[in-house]
Amino acid sequence: MKNYLKHDAWNIIEEGFHRKHNQISESIFSLGNGRMGQRANFEEYFSGETLQGNYVAGIYYPDKTRVGWWKIGYPEYFAKVLNAANWNGIYIEFDGEVFDLNKCEVNDFYRVLNMKEGYLERRFEATLVSGKIVKVVAQRFCSIVDDQVGAIRYSFTPVNFSGPVNINLFVDADVVNEDSNYDEKFWIDVATDTENDQAYVIAETKKTAFQVATGMRFGVTADGEAVDYKVTHVKREKYAACVIDFDCEEGKEVVIDKIAANLSSMNYEKDALMENCQKVVNAAYEKGFVTMKQEQAAAWASKWEESDIKIDGDVSAQQGIRFNIFQMYQTYTGEDERLNIGPKGFTGEKYGGSTYWDTEAYCFPFYMATADQKVARNLLVYRYKHLDRAIENAGKLGFKDGAALYPMVTMNGEECHNEWEITFEEIHRNGAIAYAIYDYIEYTGDKMYLAEYGLEVLIGIARFWNQRVHFSSRKGKYVMHGVTGPNEYENNVNNNFYTNYIAAWCLKYAMEAIEFVKREAPDRWTAIEDKVKFYENTETGEWKKVVDNIYLPYDEEMKVFKQADGFFDKEWEKTVDDLKPEDRPINQNWSWDRILRSVYIKQADVLQGMYFFEDHFDEDTLRRNFNFYEPRTVHESSLSPCIHVVLAAKLGKLDKAYEMYLRTARLDLDDYNNDTEDGCHITSMAGTWLAVVKGFGGMRIKDGQLVFNTMLPEQWEGYSFKIRFRGSIVEVKVNKEGTTLVNHSDEALKVQLNGKEIDL
Amino acid sequence: MKNYLKHDAWNIIEEGFHRKHNQISESIFSLGNGRMGQRANFEEYFSGETLQGNYVAGIYYPDKTRVGWWKIGYPEYFAKVLNAANWNGIYIEFDGEVFDLNKCEVNDFYRVLNMKEGYLERRFEATLVSGKIVKVVAQRFCSIVDDQVGAIRYSFTPVNFSGPVNINLFVDADVVNEDSNYDEKFWIDVATDTENDQAYVIAETKKTAFQVATGMRFGVTADGEAVDYKVTHVKREKYAACVIDFDCEEGKEVVIDKIAANLSSMNYEKDALMENCQKVVNAAYEKGFVTMKQEQAAAWASKWEESDIKIDGDVSAQQGIRFNIFQMYQTYTGEDERLNIGPKGFTGEKYGGSTYWDTEAYCFPFYMATADQKVARNLLVYRYKHLDRAIENAGKLGFKDGAALYPMVTMNGEECHNEWEITFEEIHRNGAIAYAIYDYIEYTGDKMYLAEYGLEVLIGIARFWNQRVHFSSRKGKYVMHGVTGPNEYENNVNNNFYTNYIAAWCLKYAMEAIEFVKREAPDRWTAIEDKVKFYENTETGEWKKVVDNIYLPYDEEMKVFKQADGFFDKEWEKTVDDLKPEDRPINQNWSWDRILRSVYIKQADVLQGMYFFEDHFDEDTLRRNFNFYEPRTVHESSLSPCIHVVLAAKLGKLDKAYEMYLRTARLDLDDYNNDTEDGCHITSMAGTWLAVVKGFGGMRIKDGQLVFNTMLPEQWEGYSFKIRFRGSIVEVKVNKEGTTLVNHSDEALKVQLNGKEIDL
Repeated sequence: MKNYLKHDAWNIIEEGFHRKHNQISESIFSLGNGRMGQRANFEEYFSGETLQGNYVAGIYYPDKTRVGWWKIGYPEYFAKVLNAANWNGIYIEFDGEVFDLNKCEVNDFYRVLNMKEGYLERRFEATLVSGKIVKVVAQRFCSIVDDQVGAIRYSFTPVNFSGPVNINLFVDADVVNEDSNYDEKFWIDVATDTENDQAYVIAETKKTAFQVATGMRFGVTADGEAVDYKVTHVKREKYAACVIDFDCEEGKEVVIDKIAANLSSMNYEKDALMENCQKVVNAAYEKGFVTMKQEQAAAWASKWEESDIKIDGDVSAQQGIRFNIFQMYQTYTGEDERLNIGPKGFTGEKYGGSTYWDTEAYCFPFYMATADQKVARNLLVYRYKHLDRAIENAGKLGFKDGAALYPMVTMNGEECHNEWEITFEEIHRNGAIAYAIYDYIEYTGDKMYLAEYGLEVLIGIARFWNQRVHFSSRKGKYVMHGVTGPNEYENNVNNNFYTNYIAAWCLKYAMEAIEFVKREAPDRWTAIEDKVKFYENTETGEWKKVVDNIYLPYDEEMKVFKQADGFFDKEWEKTVDDLKPEDRPINQNWSWDRILRSVYIKQADVLQGMYFFEDHFDEDTLRRNFNFYEPRTVHESSLSPCIHVVLAAKLGKLDKAYEMYLRTARLDLDDYNNDTEDGCHITSMAGTWLAVVKGFGGMRIKDGQLVFNTMLPEQWEGYSFKIRFRGSIVEVKVNKEGTTLVNHSDEALKVQLNGKEIDL
Repeated sequence: MKNYLKHDAWNIIEEGFHRKHNQISESIFSLGNGRMGQRANFEEYFSGETLQGNYVAGIYYPDKTRVGWWKIGYPEYFAKVLNAANWNGIYIEFDGEVFDLNKCEVNDFYRVLNMKEGYLERRFEATLVSGKIVKVVAQRFCSIVDDQVGAIRYSFTPVNFSGPVNINLFVDADVVNEDSNYDEKFWIDVATDTENDQAYVIAETKKTAFQVATGMRFGVTADGEAVDYKVTHVKREKYAACVIDFDCEEGKEVVIDKIAANLSSMNYEKDALMENCQKVVNAAYEKGFVTMKQEQAAAWASKWEESDIKIDGDVSAQQGIRFNIFQMYQTYTGEDERLNIGPKGFTGEKYGGSTYWDTEAYCFPFYMATADQKVARNLLVYRYKHLDRAIENAGKLGFKDGAALYPMVTMNGEECHNEWEITFEEIHRNGAIAYAIYDYIEYTGDKMYLAEYGLEVLIGIARFWNQRVHFSSRKGKYVMHGVTGPNEYENNVNNNFYTNYIAAWCLKYAMEAIEFVKREAPDRWTAIEDKVKFYENTETGEWKKVVDNIYLPYDEEMKVFKQADGFFDKEWEKTVDDLKPEDRPINQNWSWDRILRSVYIKQADVLQGMYFFEDHFDEDTLRRNFNFYEPRTVHESSLSPCIHVVLAAKLGKLDKAYEMYLRTARLDLDDYNNDTEDGCHITSMAGTWLAVVKGFGGMRIKDGQLVFNTMLPEQWEGYSFKIRFRGSIVEVKVNKEGTTLVNHSDEALKVQLNGKEIDL
């Protein structure tokens, strides 16, 4: 746990240069716009610890896997997000001396991520080894107005010297991924170009043959006057630069604007990349840094207008929630149905930047409630487009007849993960993908999504579950062996309650969806029936048998669902209170077998089911299961606490809810898990939003109606949030006096607030 | 399955050059003497597919592991047997043309492994691209008389040409391991030396700093006359050679003797290595190839005298069993307690050449019954010397107070294996190590071994089991969660019958051993008690509770022990007969999850327990369990069939026993599993011996007495074997007339034969 950042409602602030936390800061101060993003690496050359990172959404490389022991069915390749061309480099030499903060004495260092307006700023005064003192102010952002563009204004003032300065403004695609499995570079050179104040590079990924053009144009003034510099152009493989020389004068501020763009072959013909990149760069340059920055601020203002959560009386909580919302929107904007949300977004390489079940289970409600309906819909369509691959994936594991198993980790629909207990067994992910379709329709009312895309996915998933269970003659029930539930601290168990439950639910929902499409879009049904070769009587007949006879493990003594067979043979009497401080976190202190056979739970598992299917259980059942499982949960996944906030709030356990809330809200800002240097936990950030809106706000959909059951943690003065719902925008304000609802749209709306129906 | 080798009682014969099977032949025709060994690589340069392999026992390298996902407690290094200096290379050029069988037309190729006399021979006629025809006869062996020495006689006759020949006689330590995790070379240069007809190289292993000196001396004659050659000496890093030039004459046979030696720093001071290597090489050279070969034949004759199994009426079975016995003795001779038996012996790199539980569970009885008592004892002492490491190893997994967990795979006592379900969970290996002590004492009567070494090991193991179980309040029994049994097709199960049973047995046996030592060697007990900090009342009190209350899963309906909890929730009604041919072997056709949740069993598991503890169960119980489990067993481990032979024979199922016998006897000769090219399955070869001696011969020890219950497969005319027992050598001859026992020693002996006591 770190505490070096200043608490502020709208800004993330580092005062003083925290050299040894630099990689953490590089993660936290990251920038992005859904299409491209970057870690907060310095513009200047830096010889200290740094993880250089620039990323372009959707551009990946299938790196050949290394595993300890190969198993049949493992994918050979692990798609990973690529470290792409560096476009923010401005390397400076004063009279031949490299300007490198690692070699300077740094004073008055101030770094701020301005979340309200969407830019990063850095100010400091540095004393070089030679004694030269330089003052710097640097601002930059990834534009959300034109998501191909990034802009930098870098200004420096020689405080105590005049003399020659050499500035290298480059674009460099000759970069590596730190996590490359075979220390290989993933980019090959296609073209470079320089002229006057511009430099361009086009590089292509090996194997996947994506091309990305990265270009920049710069301008320099000194005290507002044009500078008469000498420019040298440097081109080499995957690298292009304009290197300028001039004399700077003591006290005269030099201002460098560097406007850059990334264009990829996902959106342009390869032949046209260079030309378009030049067009985009020049258009942005003409518009100018100041205008672009104003537009950026306006665009962020309108995003905040819709998605902000205000918390009164607790500035650290306020900062935490805004940071999370800010990062969510930096990562994914929903403009492009080919994209998704990587666990680290654009803040690092870890986890390959690929898609996990996190998207559906945690991120989906956030985008659904705060953005245009098409954003959430695009997340669903993403999986629809991967359906064939999911069927292939299931085929590799021996399933047939159109059964679909969505991958645990993917970039293009193919499975990337290679641990048998996860890849082959953590199959509940299939359930979350079906659930998101249900959730979307509940929320938006867009039932025709089923006919268009949803049903095919649901049928593929249902077929998988139907083949994955088998009938146990001894139990007289359908059972499911060899699974890993959401709690990854049990592997290869039989009859994980959550997985069995969601499997049966998927089968049931698929049958309902078939009936709906048959009735409401019969032609479409005929087309789907034909396409997926649906065998009505036999298939739904089998599904129904499974639904009616699924085994749900239950403990008669404690009257709770069993997490899995054998759970009550563990030392289940123990709780987290029996752990010694030096045991925690157990995943950093215990060997895996010890974790597996312990009673301790990584993240909501039975309770994940209670969360998704709250209405299927009476409150006593929810309470008994919560009271049993929560005290045995170590919350060592960042995805755990939020689910517990929602359930605790539902059960009126406000203190517990708030305690859980604190564990998630500032995870990265305080580097709670000691791993923020690898990047931020983007997907779990959505959990904070869930915690406030579904937890304290008690937001639900019931019978097509918005429902709120609000409560206010006593540590707060109040909070408010807005959500979109079927064309309306509803603001919920909660404070010590009570709850106010405001309808910001023209349409009338009935909602339920704390048990009463209200017209808005 | 291949069938390209000729069936012969005493020889392995390849007629005709099977180019595409060359790597398989390299494995099968391997040579060794317990101290060093090598694959049957050609002396000449060979540009075709080949796995070059020369190995020196005990010389290993801790290669840094690569795993997919790291878990706490994993070892960082995987010790692997090193590919060491090549000493058999004799590279030849005729008039500048490289002599390379891969580029020649090869006629009359004949390769024989003469097992009776312990040498390898190759004869052929090769036509080079130039049209030159060369006849070759090459013989070589690793001496079992001086286990530091290897000898080659390589002779060639130019059939249709005369002219210049260039011969490179080298020793080359600049070699790689094919399985190097980071493509690194493991040897560094120490010294090279050449003079006249000799070349020497000393290389040192990285990290482990073993040094090995490899040297050679050669002689050349043509038609029996000394050859007047010109010699050039070549020395470079890790390489030394004598390169000779002379003219060969059509029809005149050139005979090259190359006598080599490997000496290691395990046995010599590093400073003295070169000098001693020269001494050993020269002494052997002086003795000469012919004398050495005669001594080799005599030494093998006396090994065969003691350990041969004769099978009449089935030459392929005869060849199979002799090949297995031959390879066992090539791999391990029991001379050095620091050595053990790698799964591939000196025939390949796979499995790192380290020690597995195979040694105790499969190989141990072979050496105990066919070699001097000290050989088996040395195998036990090997584990005693690793006890501290086993305690360390258990410590890494959170066990304490002297609990010992022996590694799954090791070279020096440290764990090498990195798969959580094996490393942390396949802990039954601890049981086999305790069982071997018991077995040794039963067989030899050497009870004082307990006082000297055995008891400390037993206490460490007992402490581990005592900590590894926990009390289940629901079952009212001690249970053991998260284990992998011998059947590796179930992972991370609870209450594996075999593991629970052997754990309880270990606790009981440790208590008996304590009582024995206390009574018979009270001083030694005091010393041990002090050393291991034994807390009598609390420790044995706890152990007793576990022994009395261990949970042994049992199925009331089928009246068999359950392999593990949940087994009867599988589709247990299925048997191997329900598998389609294209499913088999399932480990090459099914994804891992499918294998895990299937009913199919890789190798004896419940039945492994019945095999070890036959006397603990009545025959009905043995029969029910055999009848239930064998039909569900796919025998995809080479260690599986032998156990089933022994049990089937015990139960009078001679046909089943013979069917199982066939699956193991010629595993490598027929390349049954399509993997002999990686090396031979050395440890499972002991299984064939078990199958004959304990299976068909029904050999047991009861109350300190040898017992035989013999039977004869109808496919055989008869068989015979000899075993050593407490100073006697007993020969058992079985044929259609009956069984004859012969006592080859001077001591009188009472044995039981087919239910009757006999005086020998």
